[in-house]
Amino acid sequence: MAAVKPDAYDRLVAGGWLRPTSVAGLLNLTSKFETAVARLQAALTAVDPSDSPGPLWCPPVVPREVIERAEYAESFPQLLGAVHTLGSEEAVAGDPASPTDVVLAPASCYAIYPQVADSTLAEPVFFDVVGHCYRQEVTSEVGRFRSFRQREFVVIADDGYALQWRDEWLARGEELLTRLGLTIEVKPANDPFFGPVGEFMRVSQLQQCLKFELVTRVSADDPGTAVASVNSHRDHLGHRFGIRFGRGGEEEPAHSSCAAFGIERLVLALIHAHGDDLEVWPDFVESR
Amino acid sequence: MAAVKPDAYDRLVAGGWLRPTSVAGLLNLTSKFETAVARLQAALTAVDPSDSPGPLWCPPVVPREVIERAEYAESFPQLLGAVHTLGSEEAVAGDPASPTDVVLAPASCYAIYPQVADSTLAEPVFFDVVGHCYRQEVTSEVGRFRSFRQREFVVIADDGYALQWRDEWLARGEELLTRLGLTIEVKPANDPFFGPVGEFMRVSQLQQCLKFELVTRVSADDPGTAVASVNSHRDHLGHRFGIRFGRGGEEEPAHSSCAAFGIERLVLALIHAHGDDLEVWPDFVESR
Repeated sequence: MAAVKPDAYDRLVAGGWLRPTSVAGLLNLTSKFETAVARLQAALTAVDPSDSPGPLWCPPVVPREVIERAEYAESFPQLLGAVHTLGSEEAVAGDPASPTDVVLAPASCYAIYPQVADSTLAEPVFFDVVGHCYRQEVTSEVGRFRSFRQREFVVIADDGYALQWRDEWLARGEELLTRLGLTIEVKPANDPFFGPVGEFMRVSQLQQCLKFELVTRVSADDPGTAVASVNSHRDHLGHRFGIRFGRGGEEEPAHSSCAAFGIERLVLALIHAHGDDLEVWPDFVESR
Repeated sequence: MAAVKPDAYDRLVAGGWLRPTSVAGLLNLTSKFETAVARLQAALTAVDPSDSPGPLWCPPVVPREVIERAEYAESFPQLLGAVHTLGSEEAVAGDPASPTDVVLAPASCYAIYPQVADSTLAEPVFFDVVGHCYRQEVTSEVGRFRSFRQREFVVIADDGYALQWRDEWLARGEELLTRLGLTIEVKPANDPFFGPVGEFMRVSQLQQCLKFELVTRVSADDPGTAVASVNSHRDHLGHRFGIRFGRGGEEEPAHSSCAAFGIERLVLALIHAHGDDLEVWPDFVESR
Protein backbone atom coordinates (compact mmCIF):
# COMPACT_ATOMS: atom_id res chain seq x y z
CA MET A 1 0.00 0.00 0.00
CA ALA A 2 2.60 2.52 -1.14
CA ALA A 3 1.63 6.13 -0.67
CA VAL A 4 1.10 8.27 -3.75
CA LYS A 5 3.43 11.18 -3.04
CA PRO A 6 3.76 13.74 -5.82
CA ASP A 7 7.31 15.09 -5.93
CA ALA A 8 6.17 18.60 -5.08
CA TYR A 9 4.88 17.33 -1.73
CA ASP A 10 8.26 15.86 -0.79
CA ARG A 11 9.65 19.04 0.66
CA LEU A 12 6.42 19.66 2.61
CA VAL A 13 6.77 16.19 4.13
CA ALA A 14 10.46 16.87 4.85
CA GLY A 15 9.51 20.24 6.40
CA GLY A 16 7.26 18.50 8.90
CA TRP A 17 3.98 19.86 7.52
CA LEU A 18 2.11 16.82 6.30
CA ARG A 19 2.03 13.11 5.56
CA PRO A 20 0.47 11.80 2.36
CA THR A 21 -2.12 9.06 2.07
CA SER A 22 -2.55 6.56 -0.76
CA VAL A 23 -5.15 8.86 -2.36
CA ALA A 24 -3.79 12.02 -3.98
CA GLY A 25 -5.47 15.16 -2.70
CA LEU A 26 -6.02 13.58 0.72
CA LEU A 27 -3.41 14.61 3.26
CA ASN A 28 -2.75 14.06 6.95
CA LEU A 29 -1.67 17.34 8.54
CA THR A 30 0.83 17.64 11.38
CA SER A 31 0.38 19.71 14.52
CA LYS A 32 2.91 22.13 12.99
CA PHE A 33 0.58 22.64 10.03
CA GLU A 34 -2.33 23.09 12.45
CA THR A 35 -0.39 25.75 14.37
CA ALA A 36 -0.20 27.73 11.11
CA VAL A 37 -3.93 27.08 10.57
CA ALA A 38 -4.77 28.48 14.02
CA ARG A 39 -2.76 31.66 13.33
CA LEU A 40 -4.53 32.13 10.01
CA GLN A 41 -7.95 31.58 11.57
CA ALA A 42 -7.16 34.18 14.24
CA ALA A 43 -6.10 36.66 11.53
CA LEU A 44 -9.40 36.11 9.68
CA THR A 45 -11.44 36.53 12.88
CA ALA A 46 -9.56 39.75 13.65
CA VAL A 47 -10.37 41.44 10.32
CA ASP A 48 -14.06 40.46 10.22
CA PRO A 49 -16.00 43.67 10.96
CA SER A 50 -19.17 41.85 12.05
CA ASP A 51 -17.88 41.28 15.61
CA SER A 52 -18.08 37.51 15.22
CA PRO A 53 -16.53 35.72 18.20
CA GLY A 54 -15.11 33.21 15.71
CA PRO A 55 -16.62 30.80 13.22
CA LEU A 56 -19.45 28.35 13.63
CA TRP A 57 -18.01 24.87 13.04
CA CYS A 58 -20.05 22.75 10.63
CA PRO A 59 -19.70 18.99 10.31
CA PRO A 60 -18.14 17.49 7.14
CA VAL A 61 -21.56 16.18 6.08
CA VAL A 62 -24.74 18.17 5.53
CA PRO A 63 -28.36 17.09 5.13
CA ARG A 64 -29.01 15.99 1.54
CA GLU A 65 -32.18 18.11 1.48
CA VAL A 66 -30.10 21.28 1.92
CA ILE A 67 -27.95 20.50 -1.11
CA GLU A 68 -31.02 19.55 -3.13
CA ARG A 69 -32.78 22.77 -2.19
CA ALA A 70 -29.68 24.74 -3.21
CA GLU A 71 -29.63 22.85 -6.54
CA TYR A 72 -25.91 22.17 -6.12
CA ALA A 73 -26.06 18.78 -7.81
CA GLU A 74 -27.65 20.36 -10.89
CA SER A 75 -24.56 22.54 -11.31
CA PHE A 76 -21.69 20.35 -10.10
CA PRO A 77 -22.80 16.68 -10.14
CA GLN A 78 -19.26 15.49 -10.80
CA LEU A 79 -17.88 17.14 -7.64
CA LEU A 80 -20.52 16.08 -5.11
CA GLY A 81 -19.76 13.24 -2.71
CA ALA A 82 -22.92 11.46 -1.56
CA VAL A 83 -22.84 9.24 1.52
CA HIS A 84 -24.10 5.72 0.91
CA THR A 85 -24.49 2.84 3.35
CA LEU A 86 -24.63 -0.93 3.09
CA GLY A 87 -27.80 -0.56 5.09
CA SER A 88 -28.62 -2.94 7.85
CA GLU A 89 -26.84 -5.44 10.04
CA GLU A 90 -28.46 -8.06 7.83
CA ALA A 91 -26.68 -6.77 4.73
CA VAL A 92 -24.13 -9.06 3.12
CA ALA A 93 -21.08 -8.34 1.01
CA GLY A 94 -22.13 -7.47 -2.51
CA ASP A 95 -25.44 -5.86 -1.55
CA PRO A 96 -25.75 -2.54 -3.36
CA ALA A 97 -25.18 0.53 -1.22
CA SER A 98 -28.13 2.86 -0.74
CA PRO A 99 -28.07 6.64 -0.36
CA THR A 100 -28.33 8.12 3.14
CA ASP A 101 -29.87 11.47 4.08
CA VAL A 102 -26.48 13.24 4.09
CA VAL A 103 -23.84 14.29 1.55
CA LEU A 104 -20.32 15.62 2.02
CA ALA A 105 -20.41 19.41 2.33
CA PRO A 106 -19.24 20.95 -0.97
CA ALA A 107 -18.84 24.37 0.70
CA SER A 108 -19.13 25.41 4.32
CA CYS A 109 -21.87 28.02 3.81
CA TYR A 110 -24.55 25.39 3.14
CA ALA A 111 -24.81 25.06 6.91
CA ILE A 112 -26.23 28.55 7.28
CA TYR A 113 -29.05 28.98 4.76
CA PRO A 114 -31.40 26.54 6.55
CA GLN A 115 -31.01 28.67 9.70
CA VAL A 116 -32.90 31.52 8.02
CA ALA A 117 -34.90 29.57 5.43
CA ASP A 118 -38.55 30.51 4.85
CA SER A 119 -38.30 33.82 6.70
CA THR A 120 -38.20 37.54 5.97
CA LEU A 121 -35.20 39.57 7.14
CA ALA A 122 -35.44 43.31 7.84
CA GLU A 123 -31.71 43.87 8.47
CA PRO A 124 -28.60 42.30 6.91
CA VAL A 125 -27.56 39.10 8.67
CA PHE A 126 -23.90 38.10 8.89
CA PHE A 127 -22.44 34.61 9.26
CA ASP A 128 -18.95 33.27 9.93
CA VAL A 129 -18.63 29.51 9.30
CA VAL A 130 -15.91 26.95 8.74
CA GLY A 131 -15.94 23.25 8.01
CA HIS A 132 -14.40 20.43 6.05
CA CYS A 133 -15.50 20.37 2.43
CA TYR A 134 -15.15 17.61 -0.15
CA ARG A 135 -14.94 17.70 -3.91
CA GLN A 136 -14.44 14.69 -6.15
CA GLU A 137 -11.54 16.31 -8.04
CA VAL A 138 -9.91 14.31 -10.82
CA THR A 139 -6.54 16.09 -10.85
CA SER A 140 -4.07 16.10 -7.98
CA GLU A 141 -1.53 18.90 -8.43
CA VAL A 142 -0.24 20.51 -5.23
CA GLY A 143 -3.05 22.53 -3.68
CA ARG A 144 -5.80 20.46 -5.36
CA PHE A 145 -7.37 18.99 -2.24
CA ARG A 146 -10.31 16.62 -2.27
CA SER A 147 -10.82 17.25 1.45
CA PHE A 148 -10.12 20.75 2.75
CA ARG A 149 -11.41 23.39 5.14
CA GLN A 150 -13.15 26.50 3.93
CA ARG A 151 -13.77 29.55 6.11
CA GLU A 152 -16.68 31.58 4.79
CA PHE A 153 -18.09 34.94 5.70
CA VAL A 154 -21.62 35.37 4.38
CA VAL A 155 -24.15 38.20 4.27
CA ILE A 156 -27.84 37.96 3.45
CA ALA A 157 -29.26 41.36 2.62
CA ASP A 158 -30.74 43.42 -0.22
CA ASP A 159 -29.21 43.67 -3.68
CA GLY A 160 -27.18 46.83 -3.13
CA TYR A 161 -25.78 46.01 0.30
CA ALA A 162 -24.89 42.40 -0.64
CA LEU A 163 -22.84 43.69 -3.58
CA GLN A 164 -21.18 46.47 -1.54
CA TRP A 165 -20.30 43.95 1.21
CA ARG A 166 -18.74 41.63 -1.38
CA ASP A 167 -16.61 44.46 -2.81
CA GLU A 168 -15.51 45.45 0.69
CA TRP A 169 -14.48 41.85 1.42
CA LEU A 170 -12.57 41.71 -1.88
CA ALA A 171 -10.53 44.73 -0.76
CA ARG A 172 -10.24 43.42 2.82
CA GLY A 173 -9.14 39.97 1.71
CA GLU A 174 -6.52 41.36 -0.66
CA GLU A 175 -5.21 43.69 2.06
CA LEU A 176 -5.05 40.92 4.67
CA LEU A 177 -3.32 38.36 2.45
CA THR A 178 -0.85 40.99 1.23
CA ARG A 179 -0.07 41.94 4.83
CA LEU A 180 0.51 38.23 5.58
CA GLY A 181 3.27 38.31 2.97
CA LEU A 182 1.50 36.87 -0.09
CA THR A 183 1.64 38.36 -3.59
CA ILE A 184 -2.02 38.49 -4.59
CA GLU A 185 -3.55 38.85 -8.03
CA VAL A 186 -7.30 39.49 -8.29
CA LYS A 187 -8.98 37.69 -11.19
CA PRO A 188 -12.61 37.61 -12.32
CA ALA A 189 -13.76 34.01 -12.41
CA ASN A 190 -16.63 31.89 -13.66
CA ASP A 191 -17.90 28.76 -12.06
CA PRO A 192 -18.50 26.25 -14.86
CA PHE A 193 -22.23 25.83 -14.36
CA PHE A 194 -23.74 22.66 -15.70
CA GLY A 195 -27.00 21.86 -17.37
CA PRO A 196 -28.83 21.98 -20.67
CA VAL A 197 -27.33 24.48 -23.09
CA GLY A 198 -29.90 27.19 -22.51
CA GLU A 199 -29.47 26.99 -18.78
CA PHE A 200 -25.71 26.88 -19.24
CA MET A 201 -25.69 30.13 -21.21
CA ARG A 202 -28.07 31.91 -18.89
CA VAL A 203 -26.21 30.96 -15.76
CA SER A 204 -22.86 31.54 -17.41
CA GLN A 205 -23.82 35.10 -18.23
CA LEU A 206 -25.33 35.68 -14.81
CA GLN A 207 -21.96 34.70 -13.42
CA GLN A 208 -20.16 37.47 -15.29
CA CYS A 209 -18.43 39.66 -12.71
CA LEU A 210 -20.16 37.87 -9.86
CA LYS A 211 -17.05 35.98 -8.71
CA PHE A 212 -13.49 37.19 -8.12
CA GLU A 213 -10.62 34.97 -7.08
CA LEU A 214 -7.54 35.93 -5.07
CA VAL A 215 -4.68 34.06 -6.71
CA THR A 216 -1.15 33.39 -5.45
CA ARG A 217 1.55 30.72 -5.71
CA VAL A 218 1.26 27.74 -3.37
CA SER A 219 4.52 26.09 -4.50
CA ALA A 220 7.65 26.96 -6.47
CA ASP A 221 6.33 25.70 -9.81
CA ASP A 222 2.76 26.89 -9.34
CA PRO A 223 1.62 29.41 -11.98
CA GLY A 224 -1.11 30.57 -9.59
CA THR A 225 -3.83 29.02 -7.42
CA ALA A 226 -7.06 30.56 -6.11
CA VAL A 227 -6.69 30.72 -2.31
CA ALA A 228 -9.83 32.77 -1.70
CA SER A 229 -12.83 34.09 -3.60
CA VAL A 230 -15.64 36.55 -3.18
CA ASN A 231 -18.98 35.79 -4.75
CA SER A 232 -22.32 37.38 -5.37
CA HIS A 233 -25.08 34.76 -5.46
CA ARG A 234 -27.57 37.49 -6.45
CA ASP A 235 -30.98 36.15 -5.31
CA HIS A 236 -30.34 32.51 -6.30
CA LEU A 237 -30.12 31.21 -2.73
CA GLY A 238 -32.76 33.64 -1.49
CA HIS A 239 -35.13 32.09 -4.02
CA ARG A 240 -34.07 28.54 -3.27
CA PHE A 241 -34.33 28.83 0.53
CA GLY A 242 -37.39 31.08 0.66
CA ILE A 243 -35.48 33.96 2.26
CA ARG A 244 -36.98 37.41 1.67
CA PHE A 245 -35.60 40.81 2.59
CA GLY A 246 -37.36 44.09 3.31
CA ARG A 247 -40.27 45.42 5.32
CA GLY A 248 -43.71 46.92 4.92
CA GLY A 249 -44.74 45.28 1.68
CA GLU A 250 -41.38 46.07 0.02
CA GLU A 251 -40.13 42.52 0.45
CA GLU A 252 -38.12 40.80 -2.28
CA PRO A 253 -36.08 37.62 -2.48
CA ALA A 254 -32.95 38.21 -0.42
CA HIS A 255 -29.55 38.57 -2.06
CA SER A 256 -26.47 36.92 -0.62
CA SER A 257 -22.70 37.17 -0.97
CA CYS A 258 -19.80 35.25 0.48
CA ALA A 259 -16.08 35.63 1.02
CA ALA A 260 -14.45 32.19 1.11
CA PHE A 261 -10.92 31.34 2.25
CA GLY A 262 -9.30 27.98 1.45
CA ILE A 263 -7.48 27.21 4.68
CA GLU A 264 -5.07 24.50 3.46
CA ARG A 265 -4.21 26.35 0.24
CA LEU A 266 -3.53 29.52 2.20
CA VAL A 267 -1.20 27.68 4.58
CA LEU A 268 0.65 26.17 1.58
CA ALA A 269 1.04 29.70 0.16
CA LEU A 270 2.31 30.96 3.53
CA ILE A 271 4.83 28.10 3.74
CA HIS A 272 5.98 28.95 0.21
CA ALA A 273 6.36 32.61 1.21
CA HIS A 274 7.90 32.24 4.69
CA GLY A 275 9.62 28.85 4.77
CA ASP A 276 9.61 25.92 7.16
CA ASP A 277 10.45 27.71 10.42
CA LEU A 278 7.25 28.95 12.08
CA GLU A 279 9.38 30.92 14.57
CA VAL A 280 10.37 33.40 11.88
CA TRP A 281 6.92 33.84 10.34
CA PRO A 282 5.52 37.36 10.80
CA ASP A 283 2.75 38.14 13.29
CA PHE A 284 -0.62 37.58 11.64
CA VAL A 285 -2.83 39.63 13.96
CA GLU A 286 -2.09 43.36 14.08
CA SER A 287 -1.66 44.75 17.58
CA ARG A 288 -4.19 47.49 18.20
CA MET B 1 -36.98 22.75 6.42
CA ALA B 2 -37.61 22.76 10.17
CA ALA B 3 -34.71 21.71 12.33
CA VAL B 4 -35.02 18.47 14.28
CA LYS B 5 -34.12 19.61 17.78
CA PRO B 6 -34.50 17.04 20.55
CA ASP B 7 -35.66 18.70 23.76
CA ALA B 8 -32.48 17.80 25.59
CA TYR B 9 -30.51 19.92 23.12
CA ASP B 10 -32.59 23.02 23.85
CA ARG B 11 -30.53 24.13 26.82
CA LEU B 12 -27.28 23.54 24.91
CA VAL B 13 -28.58 25.81 22.15
CA ALA B 14 -29.70 28.38 24.75
CA GLY B 15 -26.28 28.13 26.42
CA GLY B 16 -24.58 29.15 23.19
CA TRP B 17 -22.89 25.79 22.54
CA LEU B 18 -24.44 24.53 19.33
CA ARG B 19 -27.03 24.89 16.61
CA PRO B 20 -28.94 21.86 15.35
CA THR B 21 -29.37 20.82 11.73
CA SER B 22 -32.34 19.06 10.17
CA VAL B 23 -30.58 15.70 10.67
CA ALA B 24 -30.42 14.44 14.25
CA GLY B 25 -26.91 13.61 15.35
CA LEU B 26 -25.46 16.32 13.09
CA LEU B 27 -24.67 19.52 14.94
CA ASN B 28 -23.09 22.87 14.14
CA LEU B 29 -20.77 23.88 16.96
CA THR B 30 -20.18 27.45 18.11
CA SER B 31 -16.81 29.05 18.75
CA LYS B 32 -17.66 28.76 22.47
CA PHE B 33 -17.92 24.98 22.06
CA GLU B 34 -14.64 25.00 20.12
CA THR B 35 -12.93 26.92 22.93
CA ALA B 36 -13.84 24.04 25.24
CA VAL B 37 -12.58 21.58 22.59
CA ALA B 38 -9.21 23.37 22.43
CA ARG B 39 -8.82 23.20 26.22
CA LEU B 40 -9.63 19.49 26.21
CA GLN B 41 -7.19 18.81 23.37
CA ALA B 42 -4.44 20.64 25.27
CA ALA B 43 -5.19 18.56 28.39
CA LEU B 44 -4.90 15.35 26.35
CA THR B 45 -1.64 16.47 24.75
CA ALA B 46 -0.25 17.33 28.20
CA VAL B 47 -0.84 13.87 29.70
CA ASP B 48 0.47 11.88 26.72
CA PRO B 49 3.84 10.46 27.85
CA SER B 50 5.11 9.87 24.29
CA ASP B 51 6.26 13.51 23.86
CA SER B 52 3.88 14.06 20.94
CA PRO B 53 3.83 17.73 19.90
CA GLY B 54 0.09 17.32 19.37
CA PRO B 55 -2.07 15.15 17.14
CA LEU B 56 -1.76 14.41 13.46
CA TRP B 57 -4.94 15.71 11.81
CA CYS B 58 -6.57 13.23 9.46
CA PRO B 59 -9.18 14.16 6.86
CA PRO B 60 -12.82 13.05 7.33
CA VAL B 61 -12.42 10.56 4.47
CA VAL B 62 -9.90 7.74 4.18
CA PRO B 63 -8.87 5.57 1.24
CA ARG B 64 -11.35 2.74 0.77
CA GLU B 65 -8.47 0.26 0.46
CA VAL B 66 -7.43 1.01 4.06
CA ILE B 67 -10.87 0.17 5.42
CA GLU B 68 -11.03 -2.96 3.26
CA ARG B 69 -7.63 -4.10 4.45
CA ALA B 70 -8.74 -3.55 8.06
CA GLU B 71 -11.91 -5.58 7.33
CA TYR B 72 -14.01 -2.90 9.01
CA ALA B 73 -16.96 -3.41 6.67
CA GLU B 74 -17.07 -7.10 7.55
CA SER B 75 -17.68 -6.16 11.18
CA PHE B 76 -19.76 -2.97 11.01
CA PRO B 77 -21.35 -2.70 7.53
CA GLN B 78 -24.32 -0.80 8.94
CA LEU B 79 -22.15 2.00 10.36
CA LEU B 80 -19.87 2.63 7.40
CA GLY B 81 -20.47 5.67 5.19
CA ALA B 82 -19.15 5.13 1.66
CA VAL B 83 -18.63 8.11 -0.64
CA HIS B 84 -20.40 7.81 -3.98
CA THR B 85 -20.41 10.17 -6.93
CA LEU B 86 -22.70 10.84 -9.87
CA GLY B 87 -19.55 10.39 -11.88
CA SER B 88 -18.82 12.61 -14.83
CA GLU B 89 -19.91 15.97 -16.13
CA GLU B 90 -21.93 14.01 -18.65
CA ALA B 91 -24.03 12.38 -15.94
CA VAL B 92 -27.69 13.24 -15.83
CA ALA B 93 -30.20 13.26 -12.99
CA GLY B 94 -31.28 9.73 -12.22
CA ASP B 95 -27.99 8.10 -13.15
CA PRO B 96 -26.98 5.70 -10.40
CA ALA B 97 -24.19 6.89 -8.14
CA SER B 98 -20.96 4.91 -8.24
CA PRO B 99 -18.53 4.24 -5.41
CA THR B 100 -15.39 6.38 -5.18
CA ASP B 101 -12.03 5.33 -3.75
CA VAL B 102 -12.78 6.89 -0.34
CA VAL B 103 -15.10 6.24 2.61
CA LEU B 104 -15.88 8.33 5.67
CA ALA B 105 -13.41 7.53 8.44
CA PRO B 106 -15.13 5.29 11.03
CA ALA B 107 -12.30 5.93 13.52
CA SER B 108 -9.33 8.25 13.39
CA CYS B 109 -6.65 5.56 13.82
CA TYR B 110 -7.20 4.15 10.33
CA ALA B 111 -4.96 6.97 9.13
CA ILE B 112 -1.91 5.51 10.85
CA TYR B 113 -1.70 1.79 9.99
CA PRO B 114 -0.80 2.41 6.32
CA GLN B 115 2.17 4.48 7.51
CA VAL B 116 3.83 1.35 8.91
CA ALA B 117 2.16 -1.30 6.74
CA ASP B 118 4.29 -4.15 5.37
CA SER B 119 7.24 -3.44 7.65
CA THR B 120 8.93 -4.90 10.71
CA LEU B 121 9.27 -2.76 13.85
CA ALA B 122 12.02 -3.36 16.40
CA GLU B 123 10.76 -0.82 18.96
CA PRO B 124 7.23 0.25 19.99
CA VAL B 125 5.85 3.04 17.81
CA PHE B 126 3.46 5.64 19.22
CA PHE B 127 0.86 7.69 17.36
CA ASP B 128 -1.38 10.61 18.31
CA VAL B 129 -4.14 11.30 15.78
CA VAL B 130 -7.44 13.14 15.59
CA GLY B 131 -10.06 13.54 12.90
CA HIS B 132 -13.73 13.68 12.09
CA CYS B 133 -15.39 10.27 12.13
CA TYR B 134 -18.78 9.21 10.79
CA ARG B 135 -21.11 6.43 11.79
CA GLN B 136 -24.51 5.79 10.28
CA GLU B 137 -26.27 5.65 13.65
CA VAL B 138 -30.00 5.01 13.72
CA THR B 139 -30.75 6.52 17.14
CA SER B 140 -30.29 10.16 18.05
CA GLU B 141 -30.25 10.60 21.83
CA VAL B 142 -28.04 13.40 23.18
CA GLY B 143 -24.42 12.39 22.66
CA ARG B 144 -25.22 10.01 19.77
CA PHE B 145 -23.36 11.86 17.02
CA ARG B 146 -23.21 10.72 13.44
CA SER B 147 -20.30 13.10 12.82
CA PHE B 148 -17.82 13.58 15.65
CA ARG B 149 -14.12 13.98 16.38
CA GLN B 150 -12.10 11.21 17.94
CA ARG B 151 -8.64 11.72 19.45
CA GLU B 152 -6.71 8.47 19.50
CA PHE B 153 -3.42 7.46 21.01
CA VAL B 154 -2.10 4.25 19.47
CA VAL B 155 0.84 1.95 20.12
CA ILE B 156 2.16 -0.81 17.87
CA ALA B 157 4.41 -3.18 19.79
CA ASP B 158 4.67 -6.75 21.05
CA ASP B 159 1.91 -8.55 22.92
CA GLY B 160 3.05 -7.74 26.45
CA TYR B 161 3.89 -4.09 25.94
CA ALA B 162 0.72 -3.34 23.93
CA LEU B 163 -1.40 -4.72 26.78
CA GLN B 164 0.61 -2.90 29.47
CA TRP B 165 0.33 0.37 27.51
CA ARG B 166 -3.45 -0.08 27.24
CA ASP B 167 -3.78 -0.63 30.99
CA GLU B 168 -1.63 2.44 31.69
CA TRP B 169 -3.86 4.53 29.41
CA LEU B 170 -6.96 3.18 31.16
CA ALA B 171 -5.59 4.47 34.48
CA ARG B 172 -4.33 7.70 32.88
CA GLY B 173 -7.63 8.40 31.16
CA GLU B 174 -9.64 7.78 34.32
CA GLU B 175 -7.29 10.02 36.32
CA LEU B 176 -7.43 12.83 33.75
CA LEU B 177 -11.21 12.82 33.31
CA THR B 178 -11.71 12.66 37.09
CA ARG B 179 -9.36 15.63 37.53
CA LEU B 180 -11.41 17.51 34.88
CA GLY B 181 -14.41 17.12 37.18
CA LEU B 182 -16.19 14.10 35.66
CA THR B 183 -17.51 11.12 37.62
CA ILE B 184 -16.10 8.17 35.71
CA GLU B 185 -17.17 4.55 35.76
CA VAL B 186 -14.97 1.96 34.02
CA LYS B 187 -16.92 -0.79 32.22
CA PRO B 188 -15.73 -3.78 30.20
CA ALA B 189 -17.30 -3.59 26.74
CA ASN B 190 -17.71 -5.70 23.64
CA ASP B 191 -17.91 -4.43 20.13
CA PRO B 192 -20.76 -6.33 18.40
CA PHE B 193 -18.69 -8.00 15.70
CA PHE B 194 -20.57 -9.14 12.66
CA GLY B 195 -20.28 -12.04 10.32
CA PRO B 196 -21.16 -15.69 9.90
CA VAL B 197 -21.94 -17.36 13.22
CA GLY B 198 -18.61 -19.10 13.64
CA GLU B 199 -16.71 -15.92 12.96
CA PHE B 200 -19.07 -14.03 15.26
CA MET B 201 -18.38 -16.38 18.15
CA ARG B 202 -14.65 -16.41 17.60
CA VAL B 203 -14.33 -12.64 17.39
CA SER B 204 -16.80 -12.11 20.20
CA GLN B 205 -14.74 -14.24 22.53
CA LEU B 206 -11.53 -12.64 21.41
CA GLN B 207 -13.08 -9.39 22.44
CA GLN B 208 -13.61 -10.48 26.03
CA CYS B 209 -11.71 -8.06 28.27
CA LEU B 210 -10.08 -6.41 25.29
CA LYS B 211 -12.13 -3.21 25.48
CA PHE B 212 -12.95 -0.97 28.45
CA GLU B 213 -15.14 2.10 28.28
CA LEU B 214 -14.98 5.21 30.46
CA VAL B 215 -18.60 6.11 31.13
CA THR B 216 -20.10 9.33 32.51
CA ARG B 217 -23.26 11.43 32.17
CA VAL B 218 -23.44 13.82 29.21
CA SER B 219 -26.82 15.31 30.19
CA ALA B 220 -29.17 15.43 33.17
CA ASP B 221 -31.26 12.43 32.13
CA ASP B 222 -28.37 10.36 30.75
CA PRO B 223 -27.89 7.02 32.53
CA GLY B 224 -24.30 6.94 31.25
CA THR B 225 -22.45 7.39 27.96
CA ALA B 226 -19.05 6.09 26.88
CA VAL B 227 -16.82 9.17 26.42
CA ALA B 228 -13.58 7.25 25.96
CA SER B 229 -12.38 3.68 25.52
CA VAL B 230 -9.17 1.71 25.62
CA ASN B 231 -8.82 -1.27 23.32
CA SER B 232 -6.47 -4.13 22.64
CA HIS B 233 -6.61 -5.16 18.99
CA ARG B 234 -4.30 -8.08 19.78
CA ASP B 235 -2.59 -8.90 16.43
CA HIS B 236 -5.67 -8.33 14.25
CA LEU B 237 -4.39 -5.13 12.63
CA GLY B 238 -0.80 -6.36 12.62
CA HIS B 239 -2.00 -9.30 10.52
CA ARG B 240 -4.20 -7.19 8.29
CA PHE B 241 -1.57 -4.51 7.57
CA GLY B 242 1.45 -6.81 7.38
CA ILE B 243 3.13 -5.21 10.42
CA ARG B 244 5.60 -7.44 12.27
CA PHE B 245 7.43 -6.81 15.51
CA GLY B 246 10.76 -8.13 16.78
CA ARG B 247 14.28 -8.67 15.58
CA GLY B 248 16.73 -11.39 14.68
CA GLY B 249 14.32 -14.04 13.51
CA GLU B 250 12.03 -13.56 16.51
CA GLU B 251 9.52 -11.55 14.49
CA GLU B 252 5.79 -12.02 14.98
CA PRO B 253 2.70 -10.12 13.83
CA ALA B 254 2.65 -6.86 15.78
CA HIS B 255 0.05 -6.19 18.46
CA SER B 256 -1.66 -2.85 18.78
CA SER B 257 -3.73 -0.95 21.33
CA CYS B 258 -5.51 2.37 21.31
CA ALA B 259 -6.95 4.89 23.76
CA ALA B 260 -9.78 6.81 22.09
CA PHE B 261 -11.44 9.99 23.36
CA GLY B 262 -14.77 11.20 21.95
CA ILE B 263 -14.23 14.95 21.79
CA GLU B 264 -17.84 16.14 21.43
CA ARG B 265 -19.17 13.71 24.05
CA LEU B 266 -16.46 14.79 26.49
CA VAL B 267 -17.33 18.46 25.99
CA LEU B 268 -21.03 17.65 26.60
CA ALA B 269 -20.02 15.89 29.83
CA LEU B 270 -17.89 18.88 30.85
CA ILE B 271 -20.79 21.28 30.16
CA HIS B 272 -23.04 19.03 32.26
CA ALA B 273 -20.47 19.07 35.07
CA HIS B 274 -19.39 22.74 34.99
CA GLY B 275 -22.25 24.70 33.42
CA ASP B 276 -22.52 27.29 30.67
CA ASP B 277 -19.91 29.81 31.84
CA LEU B 278 -16.48 28.87 30.50
CA GLU B 279 -14.92 31.51 32.76
CA VAL B 280 -15.64 29.40 35.85
CA TRP B 281 -14.49 26.07 34.40
CA PRO B 282 -11.39 24.69 36.13
CA ASP B 283 -7.95 24.76 34.51
CA PHE B 284 -7.49 21.64 32.39
CA VAL B 285 -3.70 21.58 32.12
CA GLU B 286 -1.81 21.15 35.40
CA SER B 287 0.92 23.69 35.95
CA ARG B 288 4.28 21.97 36.43
